[in-house]
Amino acid sequence: MKPSIPKGTRDFSSTEVANRTYIMNTIRAAFETYGFQPIETPTFENSSTLMGKYGEEGDRLIFKILNSGDYLAKVDENLLASKESNKVTAKISEKALRYDLTVPFARYVVQHQNEITFPFKRYQIQPVWRADRPQKGRFREFYQCDADVVGSKSLLQEVEFVQLYDEVFTNLGLKGTTIKMNNRKILSGIAEVIGAKDKLIDFTVALDKLDKIGEDGVIKEMLSKGISEEAIENVKPLFQLSGSNTEQLDVLANLLSSSEEGKDGVEELRSVVNTIADLGLQSATLTLDVTLARGLNYYTGAIFEVAAPEGVKMGSIGGGGRYDDLTGIFGLKDVSGVGISFGLDRIYLVLEELGLFEAVELPKPKVLFLNFNEEDNLQRLKAVQALRREGIKSEIYPDTATSNNQQKKQWKYADKRAIPFVISEIENDQYVLKDRVKGEQRNCTLEQLIVETK
Amino acid sequence: MKPSIPKGTRDFSSTEVANRTYIMNTIRAAFETYGFQPIETPTFENSSTLMGKYGEEGDRLIFKILNSGDYLAKVDENLLASKESNKVTAKISEKALRYDLTVPFARYVVQHQNEITFPFKRYQIQPVWRADRPQKGRFREFYQCDADVVGSKSLLQEVEFVQLYDEVFTNLGLKGTTIKMNNRKILSGIAEVIGAKDKLIDFTVALDKLDKIGEDGVIKEMLSKGISEEAIENVKPLFQLSGSNTEQLDVLANLLSSSEEGKDGVEELRSVVNTIADLGLQSATLTLDVTLARGLNYYTGAIFEVAAPEGVKMGSIGGGGRYDDLTGIFGLKDVSGVGISFGLDRIYLVLEELGLFEAVELPKPKVLFLNFNEEDNLQRLKAVQALRREGIKSEIYPDTATSNNQQKKQWKYADKRAIPFVISEIENDQYVLKDRVKGEQRNCTLEQLIVETK
Repeated sequence: MKPSIPKGTRDFSSTEVANRTYIMNTIRAAFETYGFQPIETPTFENSSTLMGKYGEEGDRLIFKILNSGDYLAKVDENLLASKESNKVTAKISEKALRYDLTVPFARYVVQHQNEITFPFKRYQIQPVWRADRPQKGRFREFYQCDADVVGSKSLLQEVEFVQLYDEVFTNLGLKGTTIKMNNRKILSGIAEVIGAKDKLIDFTVALDKLDKIGEDGVIKEMLSKGISEEAIENVKPLFQLSGSNTEQLDVLANLLSSSEEGKDGVEELRSVVNTIADLGLQSATLTLDVTLARGLNYYTGAIFEVAAPEGVKMGSIGGGGRYDDLTGIFGLKDVSGVGISFGLDRIYLVLEELGLFEAVELPKPKVLFLNFNEEDNLQRLKAVQALRREGIKSEIYPDTATSNNQQKKQWKYADKRAIPFVISEIENDQYVLKDRVKGEQRNCTLEQLIVETK
Repeated sequence: MKPSIPKGTRDFSSTEVANRTYIMNTIRAAFETYGFQPIETPTFENSSTLMGKYGEEGDRLIFKILNSGDYLAKVDENLLASKESNKVTAKISEKALRYDLTVPFARYVVQHQNEITFPFKRYQIQPVWRADRPQKGRFREFYQCDADVVGSKSLLQEVEFVQLYDEVFTNLGLKGTTIKMNNRKILSGIAEVIGAKDKLIDFTVALDKLDKIGEDGVIKEMLSKGISEEAIENVKPLFQLSGSNTEQLDVLANLLSSSEEGKDGVEELRSVVNTIADLGLQSATLTLDVTLARGLNYYTGAIFEVAAPEGVKMGSIGGGGRYDDLTGIFGLKDVSGVGISFGLDRIYLVLEELGLFEAVELPKPKVLFLNFNEEDNLQRLKAVQALRREGIKSEIYPDTATSNNQQKKQWKYADKRAIPFVISEIENDQYVLKDRVKGEQRNCTLEQLIVETK
């Protein structure tokens, strides 16, 4: 029986680890340049910390850990006999795997509030787990890379997060990303104007299809969802929203003039858009998207989402927003926060598709000493020690070849691992060095060997 | 109700993350210099992969994950009514958290045997989980840092692992560690000589107390464990084992002359000891320890253990050995392996005790722009953008101070985060720069600011 791993999980080969590390290090470096500090939280939290924070669907998708020991001893017999899995879970499981980084962060802030200096700029790069149905690009174990600021309502943060997205994607060589922004207050304003707060999601979902099904299709869908003709008439300018960000904001300001909240949202967005226009971006484009509504019940101000460059088919590769009362669930009121997240797995797929991993240095030796006789092993050990002290990744083939076949096996090993420099023999303190990239061979001293392979 | 985390788990502050990352990066760099490649395996494995691999105690300490959905639906009612937790577990849990890195590695090698080039030198730095009773230095979630080679029986590997320990601890500034070595075959030889294989552990445990309770005490304990006087007489030279490694090996060779396996073990150790004597170590000492028997049933050749420098009270900070049939449990026979592990948490405590984290660069901004008026924010943003593009960690205090108290709060923020450079004002493109380490203040241009703070 061949061993396997649970569905939705992955083994990573050394090339994959190297590429993933490259992405994470790029994100980490940018986070730190922007003044964010790392924290880490445990893999599992008390169930009470996680349950009820992600809706009913979320509760279902959280991986629960079975209590240790004789966990059934104290469970009521009638409850067991009822076979009500949900109710039994609460009796036999007290811990659960992290479902995202945001709720553990909120828990961390409340628990450590006396050690933290606010505004607190933290980043966190750790795996999370969801018992979701696995599919292409969606796994049961995956990494999130989050940066958040809590304890400040300043819009400078929103500006910096746009810059941070631009910085990371530029540094990854991923040019032409689109940073889409919206504001929850604009959505609330639209709901006010259409006079139907409960229809807001139906409205934005329909509006989002404008490109695909045209104005008539959108209107038809809105009507079918119970949005009145009058309401649709009121927001018709949204169907023609075009031009520069500023022009679109002017249309919105006009449309939402009867809604205080809507006007606030427009002015917040305008401030961010204008500042970014003044500062400039390196490779990304900032655009307005009034249909952007991710996690509607969660965000209270800015909403971010990043799309891969045109031509790459991929869902959003990042997202985030402002939330006014994140820590309230753990008893610390009035701490406004804003944050963004990078989707590591999707970014990986995009970089792979565009061939942007080519420059990543793979963790493999640069130099291999073949081992065709036992007598020279001490000299090989001394040479490899000298190379390693110079930081040159190198190794000796461990087993001494005692036949032609075994010698071939060593050459094959060098081939398969694509090791560029091979020392085949040592003669009178001269190392026979083969440069397998250039296809050259020469004899050299240890000093020359270090120079050649460094 | 203040939020908390499960016992035996930890939150890590940014200083702790930075120090832990420093240790891991030092280990990782040495691993790669020695030709090891990283792999990563999933946090949870199929229970069948882990169960039965760590003994009964291990099975008990493995964290099990509850199946998703209506997991009780198909469980036999009589089984539930019996409340036999162990048997029920098999029906309601199919996955479990990684308990160490070795068994998942063996599973990886077998599963990916056709993609792997042997000898396969892999390293893995990942957390593991054990439902152990938490105590000082022992956690339920902790990292292991392992390097292993599979597919070669060459003793060069053993030599390289001694060098690797020396390299890592030297690079961490931890001088004076002791690398203890033994060989399972020597232990088997001793068992042969005392004529009691089943008493070997009692024997080594007693012998290990020589320093504390003296020869008479050791003999008394051995007798009480049922080891015969005659057997003790046979191995008396072990009680006087002293002198250089070579001298001790000579005594052992003599003592074990009637045991083929014992003699093999002595010669293997002699080869490693002699080669290391020729090569030299940077800061560690290699010593023989015939009482060293960690994981006796597991290792088949060399056994390693590393002790912290004298004066530091701490259990072993590393260990490992050779095992001849690791992958056999998953159906791939005759793959010899040898590996070592670094104990991250204990190394952390040792470095902390010795003050060896002082040089670690903390992830905090070098430069803070105070924010005492709104008008200058665009200029601040432009300045901070210029600094960040030069890789200088920097930030703007997000909220504009509108009172003296709020200004004080910003200074306090700079204090608490120990930010060395603070720009308090901007006047006519001149930045008022306070160097808080030197206690100096000067006005400078943006270009000068970059030079000063880089």
